[in-house]
Amino acid sequence: MKKHNFSPGPCILPQSVFEKASRAVLDYHGIGLSILEMSHRSKEFVDVMEQARELALEHLGLQNKGYKALFLQGGASTEFLMVAYNLLENKAAYLNTGTWSNKAIKEAKLFGEVVEVASSKDANFNYIPKDYSIPSDADYFHCTSNNTIFGTQLQSIPNTEVPIVCDMSSDIFSREMDFSKFSLIYAGAQKNMGPAGATLVVIKEDILGKVSRVIPSMMDYKVHLGKDSMFNTPPVFSVYVSLLTLEWLKELGGIPAIEKINTAKAELLYNEIDRNPLFKGFAAQIEDRSPMNATFSLTDESAKDRFDTLWNGAGINGLNGHRSVGGYRASMYNALTLDSVQVLVDVMQEAERTA
Amino acid sequence: MKKHNFSPGPCILPQSVFEKASRAVLDYHGIGLSILEMSHRSKEFVDVMEQARELALEHLGLQNKGYKALFLQGGASTEFLMVAYNLLENKAAYLNTGTWSNKAIKEAKLFGEVVEVASSKDANFNYIPKDYSIPSDADYFHCTSNNTIFGTQLQSIPNTEVPIVCDMSSDIFSREMDFSKFSLIYAGAQKNMGPAGATLVVIKEDILGKVSRVIPSMMDYKVHLGKDSMFNTPPVFSVYVSLLTLEWLKELGGIPAIEKINTAKAELLYNEIDRNPLFKGFAAQIEDRSPMNATFSLTDESAKDRFDTLWNGAGINGLNGHRSVGGYRASMYNALTLDSVQVLVDVMQEAERTA
Repeated sequence: MKKHNFSPGPCILPQSVFEKASRAVLDYHGIGLSILEMSHRSKEFVDVMEQARELALEHLGLQNKGYKALFLQGGASTEFLMVAYNLLENKAAYLNTGTWSNKAIKEAKLFGEVVEVASSKDANFNYIPKDYSIPSDADYFHCTSNNTIFGTQLQSIPNTEVPIVCDMSSDIFSREMDFSKFSLIYAGAQKNMGPAGATLVVIKEDILGKVSRVIPSMMDYKVHLGKDSMFNTPPVFSVYVSLLTLEWLKELGGIPAIEKINTAKAELLYNEIDRNPLFKGFAAQIEDRSPMNATFSLTDESAKDRFDTLWNGAGINGLNGHRSVGGYRASMYNALTLDSVQVLVDVMQEAERTA
Repeated sequence: MKKHNFSPGPCILPQSVFEKASRAVLDYHGIGLSILEMSHRSKEFVDVMEQARELALEHLGLQNKGYKALFLQGGASTEFLMVAYNLLENKAAYLNTGTWSNKAIKEAKLFGEVVEVASSKDANFNYIPKDYSIPSDADYFHCTSNNTIFGTQLQSIPNTEVPIVCDMSSDIFSREMDFSKFSLIYAGAQKNMGPAGATLVVIKEDILGKVSRVIPSMMDYKVHLGKDSMFNTPPVFSVYVSLLTLEWLKELGGIPAIEKINTAKAELLYNEIDRNPLFKGFAAQIEDRSPMNATFSLTDESAKDRFDTLWNGAGINGLNGHRSVGGYRASMYNALTLDSVQVLVDVMQEAERTA
């Protein structure tokens, strides 16, 4: 039986994507080769890479606006480093909204001065700081758009002349935004885009070339851009499955269409969390709640075994909260259906009835 | 029709591996989840990672000898950088036998003094230098065991007190060696091990911790070792398919068994290159020839169209040489069968007959 997959990442992708990917592992489009044995220099794969790069920009509304997309390796954790390598000459401003922001700050400090403009660390990151200012002489301002572990999301992006760099790993392609406010966006593929092993980086080219240090080739965005994201062998399969997912999103109607579905899923679950006396939400402010990752816990810990038995029995997967927060986390990425959320809500109501 | 895949990499993997991987993309071992949507923290994937790490060490005869294996991202190109970050304090010695050695040297120079102990660049890397000495005060000696582009292979590893670091991307798991001579071995997966997107690094732990610089987390082997190769989300699918390929190799009888097959394939093809007046080999010395990548060209360029039509018609894929060498390159990695090599030899004989 297919699970209702609420895993925080790697996570659910569309079933049609799994089916196409499975066929391509046996034979890519009938050419007599598996996608896994195709040269990355073959016409077939060069086309995949170019289509994936273009479609990523198209979804974000960033075509013909000075942006380029790359598919790299190493996840957001490598971007923490690359961002600083490429952009941090003197001073950078970071907003600290969770574990991943914190890690980004740690890596950046190896390269220059880091100003933490605000932090919600004092309250275990259960809110998004809103009252802060960005030094006008910062090389860039870095933020994390969605905090997977804590279940909070940035609802407003500050207005500033400083270039904005954003880690969108856990909510890219999930909601409409003016993406042209960002000079650099990065995201590990393994939430809304594809399997683990690829990292999307979208760069406004004019922000590069301003630091004085020599950058190792693999860390240098200019090197990757100069080779059309093929400086070295790319993660072929992860890029291909990312393309399939981006195509699925396009057929669905793009970000505006998926945002409606994501909003409906989030409303269904958060309404139940708020209504059901057995549960309470983690985020301190309702406005900061993430539609991607809903964090909540039991009001009565003695119900834990019963609730755990119920959701496991309903075929729900990946609901345990991160150890930093405890309780539960329902990750509702793009490919998760409203039906799966309804199954969870039914289980929560069943837990209440049998309390 | 299934192609005879002589691609230099990404390259052929065993057909049984494609079949298992294809099924796992739909449903991993019947658990109701695709391998692409499984959490890397799930028991299932933690087992995959641990088995892959252990089996890699087992094949190399390096279990219980102070070595650990990691599956990282970024390919050998990232290792060029990581090796220097982690090991280069003052001076390192490099043997320059081809494009990839050359790139490794370029990156290392950003971190300290690099002594090029010998180079075959003067002859477009058509031989392996043998007469060189390694400075006894070098932090390490770096070599490339197989030169994919030029079709040459190191047949002897120098005896030295200096730790030896080796890029085995294109011939790992293909031949017996005393792997305990090496302190660090790295290899992009996409030749004999798996699909693009994973990099195997085998490290003798006692060589770490000797440089004074602060190493960024993602560049630090100690960080990855401390988290059992799960510091950040690993390339789940590439690691899984690597495990399948390592298991296939074990069932076959391991490196001793595959070496016999590889030797038979190489003898069949090189004998034809030497016998057939229409062809000539690229490597200047027969002893330097790589069993993995046979580079050769036509003695009469006017036969090119006819030969190209013949091998394309026979369902052969990936035979064009690299632009640095020209001509042809037959890559005969572990999963390529003797039958496929026979098809190529038949075509070469057909080209001779119809000359």
